[in-house]
This record gives sequence, C-alpha cells and structure tokens, in this order.
Amino acid sequence: MQWVKVLGLGLGGAALLGLGIILGHFAIPKGTDSPAPSISAPQDLDLEILKTIMGQLEASRIRENLRELSSEPHLATSLRDEALVQLLLQRWRDPVSGLDVAEASEYEVLLSFPSQEQPNIVEVVDPTGNVLHSCLQNEENITGEQAGPDVVPPYAAYAPPGTPQGLLVYANRGTEEDFKELQAQGIRLEGTIALTRYGGAGRGAKAVNAAKYGVAGVLVYTDPADINDGQSLPNETFPNSWRLPPSGVERGSYFEYFGDPLTPYLPAHHSSFRLDLVNVSGFPPIPAQPIGFQDAKYLLCNLDGPSAPAAWQGALGCDYKLGPGFLPNGNLTDSQVRVSVHNQLELRNSSNVLGMIRGAVEPDRYVLYGNHRDSWVHGAVDPSSGTAVLLELSRVLGTLLKKGTWRPRRSIVFASWGAEEFGLIGSTEFTEEFFSKLQERTVAYINVDISVFGIGVVRSPGPSDLSIYDNWIKHFNRSSSVYGLIPSLGSLGAGSDYAPFIHFLGISSMDIAYTYDREFFSKLQERTVAYINVDISVFANATFRAQGTPPVQSVIFSATKEVRSPGPSDLSIYDNWIKHFNRSSSVYGLIPSLGSLGAGSDYAPFIHFLGISSMDIAYTYDRSKTSARIYPTYHTAFDTFDYVDKFVDPGFSSHQAVARTAGNVLLRLSDSFFLPLNVSDYSETLRSFLQAAQRDLGDLLKQHSISLGPLVTAVEKFEAAAASLDQRKSALQAGSPDPLQVRMLNDQLMLLERTFLNPRAFPEERYYSHVLWAPRTGSVATFPGLANACSKASNTDPGSEAWAEVQRQLSIVVVAVEGAAATLRPVADL
Amino acid sequence: MQWVKVLGLGLGGAALLGLGIILGHFAIPKGTDSPAPSISAPQDLDLEILKTIMGQLEASRIRENLRELSSEPHLATSLRDEALVQLLLQRWRDPVSGLDVAEASEYEVLLSFPSQEQPNIVEVVDPTGNVLHSCLQNEENITGEQAGPDVVPPYAAYAPPGTPQGLLVYANRGTEEDFKELQAQGIRLEGTIALTRYGGAGRGAKAVNAAKYGVAGVLVYTDPADINDGQSLPNETFPNSWRLPPSGVERGSYFEYFGDPLTPYLPAHHSSFRLDLVNVSGFPPIPAQPIGFQDAKYLLCNLDGPSAPAAWQGALGCDYKLGPGFLPNGNLTDSQVRVSVHNQLELRNSSNVLGMIRGAVEPDRYVLYGNHRDSWVHGAVDPSSGTAVLLELSRVLGTLLKKGTWRPRRSIVFASWGAEEFGLIGSTEFTEEFFSKLQERTVAYINVDISVFGIGVVRSPGPSDLSIYDNWIKHFNRSSSVYGLIPSLGSLGAGSDYAPFIHFLGISSMDIAYTYDREFFSKLQERTVAYINVDISVFANATFRAQGTPPVQSVIFSATKEVRSPGPSDLSIYDNWIKHFNRSSSVYGLIPSLGSLGAGSDYAPFIHFLGISSMDIAYTYDRSKTSARIYPTYHTAFDTFDYVDKFVDPGFSSHQAVARTAGNVLLRLSDSFFLPLNVSDYSETLRSFLQAAQRDLGDLLKQHSISLGPLVTAVEKFEAAAASLDQRKSALQAGSPDPLQVRMLNDQLMLLERTFLNPRAFPEERYYSHVLWAPRTGSVATFPGLANACSKASNTDPGSEAWAEVQRQLSIVVVAVEGAAATLRPVADL
Repeated sequence: MQWVKVLGLGLGGAALLGLGIILGHFAIPKGTDSPAPSISAPQDLDLEILKTIMGQLEASRIRENLRELSSEPHLATSLRDEALVQLLLQRWRDPVSGLDVAEASEYEVLLSFPSQEQPNIVEVVDPTGNVLHSCLQNEENITGEQAGPDVVPPYAAYAPPGTPQGLLVYANRGTEEDFKELQAQGIRLEGTIALTRYGGAGRGAKAVNAAKYGVAGVLVYTDPADINDGQSLPNETFPNSWRLPPSGVERGSYFEYFGDPLTPYLPAHHSSFRLDLVNVSGFPPIPAQPIGFQDAKYLLCNLDGPSAPAAWQGALGCDYKLGPGFLPNGNLTDSQVRVSVHNQLELRNSSNVLGMIRGAVEPDRYVLYGNHRDSWVHGAVDPSSGTAVLLELSRVLGTLLKKGTWRPRRSIVFASWGAEEFGLIGSTEFTEEFFSKLQERTVAYINVDISVFGIGVVRSPGPSDLSIYDNWIKHFNRSSSVYGLIPSLGSLGAGSDYAPFIHFLGISSMDIAYTYDREFFSKLQERTVAYINVDISVFANATFRAQGTPPVQSVIFSATKEVRSPGPSDLSIYDNWIKHFNRSSSVYGLIPSLGSLGAGSDYAPFIHFLGISSMDIAYTYDRSKTSARIYPTYHTAFDTFDYVDKFVDPGFSSHQAVARTAGNVLLRLSDSFFLPLNVSDYSETLRSFLQAAQRDLGDLLKQHSISLGPLVTAVEKFEAAAASLDQRKSALQAGSPDPLQVRMLNDQLMLLERTFLNPRAFPEERYYSHVLWAPRTGSVATFPGLANACSKASNTDPGSEAWAEVQRQLSIVVVAVEGAAATLRPVADL
Repeated sequence: MQWVKVLGLGLGGAALLGLGIILGHFAIPKGTDSPAPSISAPQDLDLEILKTIMGQLEASRIRENLRELSSEPHLATSLRDEALVQLLLQRWRDPVSGLDVAEASEYEVLLSFPSQEQPNIVEVVDPTGNVLHSCLQNEENITGEQAGPDVVPPYAAYAPPGTPQGLLVYANRGTEEDFKELQAQGIRLEGTIALTRYGGAGRGAKAVNAAKYGVAGVLVYTDPADINDGQSLPNETFPNSWRLPPSGVERGSYFEYFGDPLTPYLPAHHSSFRLDLVNVSGFPPIPAQPIGFQDAKYLLCNLDGPSAPAAWQGALGCDYKLGPGFLPNGNLTDSQVRVSVHNQLELRNSSNVLGMIRGAVEPDRYVLYGNHRDSWVHGAVDPSSGTAVLLELSRVLGTLLKKGTWRPRRSIVFASWGAEEFGLIGSTEFTEEFFSKLQERTVAYINVDISVFGIGVVRSPGPSDLSIYDNWIKHFNRSSSVYGLIPSLGSLGAGSDYAPFIHFLGISSMDIAYTYDREFFSKLQERTVAYINVDISVFANATFRAQGTPPVQSVIFSATKEVRSPGPSDLSIYDNWIKHFNRSSSVYGLIPSLGSLGAGSDYAPFIHFLGISSMDIAYTYDRSKTSARIYPTYHTAFDTFDYVDKFVDPGFSSHQAVARTAGNVLLRLSDSFFLPLNVSDYSETLRSFLQAAQRDLGDLLKQHSISLGPLVTAVEKFEAAAASLDQRKSALQAGSPDPLQVRMLNDQLMLLERTFLNPRAFPEERYYSHVLWAPRTGSVATFPGLANACSKASNTDPGSEAWAEVQRQLSIVVVAVEGAAATLRPVADL
C-alpha cells in the first residue's frame, strides 16, 4: 500500500509536526539546534486515501443515520431539534470517529408558529354565517406518523394573523401577471380570498402580489398536475406510491428575505439590536394558509365565473374557473371563504453545530461543508437525507483522523445549521457573525441539503426497461396465496441471496453490501403490500444534479468521473449526469450542465453575502419521466423514513453516491496542493452574459447611447488574465514549486469570487452583493443588475432615472469584471 | 561589509530566482532534475541594508527635487501637472535608479475652476450701485511668483456660481453654533453675506451651515490671530518671515465628501456612470469666496451692529462687530457686499503615477507609499515637500535595486496621486478601481503629504536659545555696507566653510553635505535681505508628528528611535517627539502620541474605505511656540521653494529626517519576516473607547435599558486574543519558523484592520466604513457610531428611532470587535 509510506513520510511527519506547531502550540521553545519545521514539503491530494474514503462510505450507515435523524419530527428549536444537536455533538466528539473539535452555538431568532390554542382554519361560510365546509387542519394520519403533538399543522410561516373573509377567486400561481390577467378579465379582486397553487412565484410573493390588488387573504395548494403527474387518488398516492396524498400540505416560510427577520446584517445574539416589528420588512402583508389538493378541489370545482386560461388548468378533474364566488346553483352558492390565521411570532434559541478537522499545513484555509438540521415534520428527505450523508462522511474522515492515518492540508468545517426552513437563518447568522474571518479564509462552501430527491438505482441492468421488481420476479418468484406471483424472498443471513444484489447495485464492500441488503430485504418483507404498486421504472435513470459557481465546475466534474453511478450500469456519475442535464460549452463541447445558485438552501449567504465559491449537490429523479415540481411529499408530514426507504432511494445507493461525490469534492478542496478551483471557467459565463446582453439588449442600449464597449473590453481582459493564469499554474505544477508560491496562486483562485461582490450594487436586495448571481427578474440571461435595470427602464423616457440606473449597473459590472481580471493577473503587475 | 555577503547568499540568490519564477515567468519549463526554487529560505529585515538606505538619503537631493517640483504652479490637470507626471515616470523608469515598473493612469474627474473670462469679485456696493471697494482678485506679487497665467486666483472650488448681494454679517468660523449665536443675538441672517474665518468647521460646512440660516453668500478669510500669532503688517510677514502676507488667500475644495463627485464608489473612467449634476451631493449650496485678511480687515472693521463675543475677536486691530451692514457714519454706510462667483465645473483627465518594486518572496503583499502631486499654486510645502522626499526615497531604493544589491521581500508600490486638492480624488478613484485586490493584499499605506510643516533644525546646539543665524553671526561675521553686521559667507568650493554645518546638521555623508551646503549658501547669499527678519528661534525644537491606526504605532516607534532628530541635539526623533506630543499609555507609560486619521489627505480612502492600516507622517513646528493653525502660506501663492528653503526647512534636514523615518518604516514593512504590525496595540484603543463609553455614556444608556455588557465582553475577548497571538508570535520568532506559518500569522496581522469595516454601519457617510475611525461628532471619545447616535438621541424620548439607532450602533461595534477577536484567535479555533 503505497500511500501508507507516503503518509508516513509526508503527512505523518510534516503534517503532525506542522499541526502541533501551528494549532495553539506555537509556544514550543526551541534551541538553536532544533530543526526547522518541514511542513513546506509539498503535499498533494493522496489518491489512495481518496479511494479508501470512497470505499468506506456505507449506504447502510447512511440509512441508519436517516432512520435516527427522521424518527421524530424536528421542527427548528423543538426539543427533538435540540436532541439532534446533542447527537451531532456526540458523533463529532466521538473518540474513535469524531473530529478535532465540535461546538454548538445559539442564536435568538424570530420564528413563526401556528397557535396551539387557536388552530388556523379555512372555511366556507354561507351568508347567514353557517360553516358549509372546513378544510382539514391536519394531514390524514395514513402511516401513523402524521398525528401527534410534534407534527406541526400546515401553515404559512410569518403570514400575519387575521380572519379575512371574502369571495373566492382562482389566481393560478399568484404571480403579478396572474393577478393582472384576472384584472384584465374584469374579475373584481378587492376583498377576495385568492386560491393559488404552488410554483411560479415564491411563497411570500404570492401574498405580496395579491395584496397589491386588494386581495384580503391567500390560500395555496399543490396541484396534482404539478407534483403527481396528474394522479390524485388515494390508491395512486402515498403510501401506494411516492405521490402526494390528497391531504398533503406543503408548509413553508413566507418570509421574503433570508436570515433572522429582526437582525439583518447582525448576528442574532441575545443582546443584539433588533428591529421593532413595525420596521420589519419581508413578511407577507395579508394572511395566508396552505391547504391540501383534496380541499382545493372542493373549493375550485365549485367556483363560478369564466373559465381559467388553459395554462391555469390543473389536474383536479374539473374545469378551473376564476370566480369570484361559487356556482349559483351549487352547495356553496353565495358563500364566502374565511381564512383564520393565528400564527404567532416567537423569539427562540436555534443552534448551529460546527465540527472541525484542523488542517495540517494551511489550517487558516477552510473548506466548509454544511446542511441544515431542522425539518418541518420528520423531514426524512428534507433535510435529513443530507444530514445522514454528512454524518457518514464525517465518520469516515473522523476515523482516519483519529487513527492518525490522515489529516487534511486545509481545515475542514462541518456545519449543521438551525432554522433553515424559516429562511436560512442559522447559516445566515453564522456568516454575519464571522463575516471577515470567513471571507478571508474560506476556500469553498459545499451544501448538501436534500441529498436524494428521487429514486435512482432501481432500473434493471441491460437493455430492457424492466423495473427491478419486474426483472426480479422473472428470476426469483413464488406463488403467494395472497398476492399471486411475487418475487421470492429467501430467509436472511445465508450468504446466497444477496449476491445478485451486490452485482445489481454495484457496491464494492462486502460488509456494506451485507448490511445494506439485509436491511433492504427486511423492508421488502415487511412491506410487500406497499411495494406492489410502485411503478418504479417511471423514475429510473435518476441523475446527479449540481448547482454552483463556475470555479467549482471542474472539481465536481473530477469527482463525478471517479464515482460510479448508483444505477446498474457501469457509467460514472459524470457519464450518467451528462445524459440528463447537459449543455454545449463553447470551451469543452458537451458537458453536464451546472445550475446556478439561487437562495433555496444554506449556500445563499455564502455565495451572495460573502462571495465564497459554493455548490449544492444532490441526486434527483428523471425529469423526462415525471413533471413533479419537487419530490411530492416535500414539506409535508409524509416525508418520512419509510418514504425514503421505499420510494426515494431503496438501498440508499443514491445517498451513497452523493456521499462519495461530496466527499470526493471535499477531499480535493482540502488536500490538493493547488486549489481545484478553475477560475477560467468564469470566462465562459462572462462571455455568455456579454453575448446575451449584446444580442438581446444591444439595440435598446444603443438607442439610449449606452455602449457595451467597456464591458467587452473588461470581459476580454478577464479572459486573457484567466488564460494566462492557467498557463502559469500549469508551469508551476510541472515543476516542484515552493509552498509559498502555490499559496499565492491559491489565494488568487480563492479570492476571485470575492471580487464580484459589491455591497452597494443592489441596496434593496438584502444580502445580495454578488453582481453575477443576484436575483434576475429581467428576461435576458445576462448580468442581473443590467437585465433588471433594462427591464425596468424599457418603458421609460430617455434620460429617466431608470436609464441612469441602467448605466450605473453597467458600470458596476464593468468595475467588477475589471477588478476580477486584476486579481488574476500576476500579483506584481501594476 | 557583512550585508553584501548575506545578500549574495540569501537575497541575491533566493530573491532573484524567486522573482524570475514568480513574476510573469512561471512558464519556465523544468526537467525533473531541475532544483526546486529556494525562496522558502527565511529572510528578514537586513539592518545593514537599512543603515545603508538611511545613509544614502540626501538632504540636498530632496532640496533639488523640491526646487524642480515647485518651480511652477501645478494645479491638478494643468500642463505642468502633466509634465510632472512625465518627470515621475522618467525618474521611476531610470535604468540606474528607477523601479521595476512605472505607469500613469488617468481618471476623468469633475473639477471646479474660476472662469478665465469672468473673474470672481467681492465688492462693496452702495445703494446706487457704485462700487466702493473691490477686494483683490489676486494675491500681491511680492516675490515675482504670485502672478502669471498659471497662478490660479483664489477661489472656493465647487462653490456654485452666483452673484448674491446683501448686508454683511460676521459669523466667526461659520459653525452651526456660530449661526445659532447670531440668531440668538437677533441678527437677521436672511439674504446676508456672511464673513467667516477659516478653522473650526470644514470649508464646505461653513456654506452648508450658512445656507440653513438663509445666508446668500459666504466669504472666508484667514485671521492673523489664527495663522500669524497676531502679526499682520507687511514687514512682519512673508518675505520677511514665514507669516502670511495681508493679501494671502487660502484656496481649497469646498466639496463635503471626497472622491470624484460624479462617480461615488465607481472609478471615474471615461465610460463610467456619472451622476446627473442635480443628483450630486456635497457641493456648497451657496456661492462662497475666500479673501485675504487685508480685505477682510476693511470689511470687518467697518461693520455695524453689536460687538462679537470675545472668542470671536481676532487680530485685525479693531473690535469685531456682528453686522448686519456697515457703520452708519463711515465710508460704507448703507452699502452691501456683492459676491460674484463664476466658478465652472469641468471634466478633466487627472493622472496617478504608480511605480513598483516587485517583492522577491511575497510579491502579492503590497506596501503602499503615496502622496499627491497636484498643488494649488507652486505648492512647495503642500504637497511637493512630500513628493521631494518620495523621489529621494525611490531613488535610493531604486539604485540598490538596479545594482542587484537588494530587493524587498514584499512588493513596494509608490504612488503620486492626482487632484488631491479637490477632494483626494486620485487616491479615491484608485481604491475604487482596485478595491478587492488592494483589500486582499495591502499590508499598510504610508502617506507623506506635507513632509515638513515648519522649521525644525535651526536651533543652535547647546543650552542657548540662539537661532542658527544668531549663533552663526557670532562665529563668522562681517560688516556689510548694506545690512550692517551679518554672517560672513565664504567663497564656496573650499573645504573649510561647510565643516561646521555638517556638524550642526548631522549629515553623515560628505558628498551629500557638500552639495547641500553649497546650495544652502548660495541661497543665503542671494537672499540675505530676507533672512534678516527671520525669527527662527520661535519655531525651534520642531518635532516629528504622525497619525495612524494602532497597528502602525510600533513600527513608527522603531523607526523614529533609529533616526537622529534633525535638531542639533543627539536625540533620536523618538526622544524629541515624545517631548512635544506625548500621552500616558496604560501599557507603555509615557510614549509619543500618535494622532488618529481624519480625511485630510490621501490616506482617507485607504483607511476608511478599504480598512488598510495607514499612517501619515511629517515634521512640524513647535505648537508651544506658535498658535498657527497650519503653516501660514498654506494653499496660497506664497507657498514657494524659497519659502521652504528660507523659512520652513533651511538645510532640508527635517525633510531628510522624514525621508529617513518614512524609509525606515517602509523597509520594516516590506522586508521584515514577521509583519511589524502590532495588533495588540488596538487593545489599548478599544479599552479606552470602552472606558469613555462607560464613564460618559453609561448612566444615560442605563436609563434607556441599554447595556454595555456585551461590549465589555467583546473588548475582553479582543484583549485576550491579541495577547495570546503576541505569545504565539514570540514563540514562533524564537524558533526558525516555516515561511508558510509566518505567512499565516502575517495574514492575521494584515487583515485585522479589515475586520473593523462595515459598509452598512454609516449609510450616510460616503466611504466611511471603519467603525472605529469614522467621523465623530458626539463629544465622547468613544466609538464614533455610538458617540454620534447617543448625541442625537439624548434629547429624544425613550423608544425613539434615535435610541434604536444607539442600540444598532452598539451592536455594530460589538460584532466588529468580536469579529476582530475571532480573526486574531488561532486560525483553526472554532
């Protein structure tokens, strides 16, 4: 084993010596004859160690982690959430598999909960005040896990309390255009209750848009067309499939910003300055409440008024009308809808948990890896699938660390964030508290929230389209007195039965495979009744999915090329990924398509506020096979361990694939001598933004005497500087460079992302400072500030303030790109 | 010469090899047998090199630099200013004594000039429109240098054009309190012209304050009480002394902010977005014009109305009255004052010149050293005394560089900024253009603007108070038929006469002394008539003066201890300095007092906008001997070479002392293995700010339930972290640390200052982001945000927005100090 020797000489000696000296032990007295510490010896990523780590990540342990993490609801700041803080601390402080240090830290943050005394209710009330219909206050208790004091009833967090009552209208997805359309159709909106469906606009945006048109209250539901491929019957939905049951309701935060609402830009310590509630912005202006599609169907299919446009129709089995009010000859004639919201704002203590492996050589360079811990209910998929992976990865690394086998070149920080569901609160407060230190030292942030969105491993190998089930039954079957012909389940514990599954599932470790398959079989045995209806082939060919900024593209590519796809094929994750999400790159030809980062998870404060290169990775279902907006039980009480175990990732090989990929990325970032951040991949992005601006905005800008020339020059400078830096890097790599030289180059790579920050670019967009990735509302796929400003200016007169803002935004981009080029040029160039 | 050997081995080898590899030459192909670059060999400040540099800085060359720089007026963007750009480029590109690279870069900035066609005029006009008196439009041409097309007439830059006419009032210094006082005395201010004197409030602030009270125009003059120790007669003033002549007028920018007025936060490139003029803020709201005290006396001594308060009286030789209007029975009865201002705003190209010495080992760490180049007229003191020093320092370093004798560890960047006089424009645009790169890499900024404010070396040695002149005349004299007894000037070129001056002036190099003395004597010969009245002993015992943030205190102390004071004594600059400006430090006992940085010169954008540890150093006159607000010819046409040569620093030994000190500081910052930034000196500052808050604001805060507890904790954490870092540093220093370890520690030192930046702390203060050094208007010597907020809140009700702002400011400070502590703690602490 070559790597052991290398370690013994390189890491074992230098790393441990370096560690001892650097980390709090600077004060070792030295005689004049003592040797200089030799941590300057070049050290690089050890491929053998990487392989070892890949091999030690066990699907079965991820499954066990998930079982424990999701065994009970763990809403932010609940007792169970706090118990999980202890669980994380215990794992990360474990003497055999823990990290160097682990701590929890609390923030006092403003959360929003439904009242326990006065439940939120949505009712249909007739003119005399009789209640004709009450929507469900809780989801149906289908598996025994949807009831109980810890299951928070569906609600719209931060929606204000109130009991608006009015005629019902249907407002599609609640976008501005939707309300405009209603207005255009002559629907009087003042004082109405608007029924909207999820998607299209953010949760809070629906209420904001509605309020602008005088709407008094908002209902939100999930249409089966958007989540269930149209299917909505109980026998078509969970627990008979992965689909959302009729009573399922997506909870969620309706806060428009992220971070603690009372302490923008300040960490929410007990003593921190807090806004008066009257000064808080971003809360929905009117009461809102989510409901299940079972209740939505009752309301919507009784609506009066003109038919909704074709694009507004869904899958509830009736013609969607616009309202206002109900059909004249139906049960609900002349009735109104009353939305009773009794949400309460509460200051609560929410914890982050941080665990660190100190770097041996460059302890002041951090690779952050995080996920949130809090869920809406059990949160097996969201977020525990990510936490289960996180714990397995930290276990494997911790074990190598405690054995003395390995220590990373740079420091690794694992984070379990609190209160993400309420608006990325834990992570945002952390970035506010340690703004400078993190900006100066963080190499990259890796986010793994929902690690697996959908089933990915159950397609039968070979050319057929058979599901595993269908294939299995062909090989092993028996005639059951209850079910007829079903796959045959042997007794567990004998060595013979799991062999084909090892083959099918491609798990290299006997031990892992054994544990894993035993569990898998047990489950199948226990729940064969449920398994029968799973149309698993629908979601076959699942795929890796990643979002990130260009510098992390290459390291994700490297990692995914080294990890085998969880499917039965021999494809790498990369080769499978490229089949599902790809694009034609002007530089590389056909490559997997990396999505851009919005604000959907805890990466948001890292990229938008701190300017740290970030990524979010997961395994997901095949979008060519289902149009589900997200996995169907998202934010409902049906997102449970069994749901994952049965429908999302039976076998947990997709979880394992994510762990391997994330671990591979993490190791490359922490251990590579040269940081694996390919900054020149920003050239392609900048060029494409520029081309979009030239193509789609060029004429308009010319009409207003605004030249894109300076932007062209800036992008050219960036391209030249990046290409030249690549050459210098290659030449350095070909030699045996001094650690200080590499550090200097690495600093350029690390800090490039920071150069795109401008805290004054978007004064009205809280935290958004990154001039390339701030929210874009304009339709042109270019620099967001430019796109948005052009969109706003397009209907104004020449010389308007709006056109001045276009020029300002253009200058901001030019300065940022020029500054980025300056950062990449040789450091001693003037 | 020991250092040559060291260089040959350490620097000559490692540095040049490293340089070749690092700086643009990464692409050297390497066989596997090529040796690794050895730049990791520890290198530290070489004291022999330092001594060499100190010895090579020649007073005579500084004098020649100054003569050339100030030979003609060089107003920003004038032809002569551009000629000086070429002069700097030529010097810095000199093959024998130049730097590695030098470049000029232009910004297109908005300046303000008086109209050439319509001169600004201040007149007294009688009721029939007859002009009874016109103030001088130009200074009196006393030395032949106060006239000509390149001497810009006195004006208030950025004051708007207009011809207000009204009754004259006297408004002291034009502070808010001054106008309140006038109002309290029943003086009707609406439509008046307010005569104010310099000092007390910023230039622009006088107009802003005046406009609030309905004043229509502002005149500003310099009172002899404030600049001339009361003396005002022609025979008491220049060219018969260093004092301001009666016609002298201080020009200046009346812009309230700094940086190009049209492009806040953006570099003023040709294509950059520019504000519409109507949206520009910071210009004086009403016309303003400065005048000489000769004209001010005529106006003021004819004023009617009640006597001004005692504190408002000056030295014009009459009782100052308040007005409005002139004495009833005088020449000016019933007359008004008309202020005709025809200033024009113009977009002009202003150049910065940058020169760089590339660092051998850490080229990506910059030590910046800068001064502005532009003057109001000849600007011999302001700024050419600093530029003359800058050129001498760059010559000495460049010569060593070109010889191959020396190359600094880190990169040194010399800067000659343009358009400082209009509002630090060149330096600010530079910081806007390279914001990220500079923030990431700059170790410190050294500013040497006016290098010598006043005479400092001419006191006779020994216990007497005799001036050099008086002492000299005792030793060498002759009876002149014109002047009577004067010092005897021998013929130059013989070796005998300059010997005592070498002794007096303490110049170690024969060659320097020779050149210098020859010049000095020539001047004395030519201008003996002027010399006779010089009361040079008044300003004897001049002193070093420095402003800076705490981390630079120690390096300034180190440097000043190594440079001999320019006086005749054997004192070091440090020992002399401590006699003039000192304070009792809780840590060190009695030490020289380092001033804090305002916005008086180009350091402002570096410290306030970028958070780079900065300093401004100079030699200045003895404030116990004169109450002059600044050197008397400041911003007038009398600030000429002869003025410096005769009155400010005959012999240029103070200039030399500044060159040596600045050079010493520069070398320490560029060459020391461990950065000589003593961050723990911030502990004393934070503690003193805290104590002031506790002492002077504690009760008030308690009344409003605002606790200083979190601030106490934060300061304690900082103190502990800083002390512990000091220990780790000492232990490292005692060993033979790895360059990477030192780099990590140095990064902590360098970046500490950055942690005090918060771009959202003071949204209304353009560029001011440093929470410790932003402008403080509140009277308590504590954190400015807290002091100012308390000052504003003190008269408001509990629960007001103003009290909320106090809490917000307190939280901002707590977060900054906690963040600073986190930056100083061991880098791998959680």
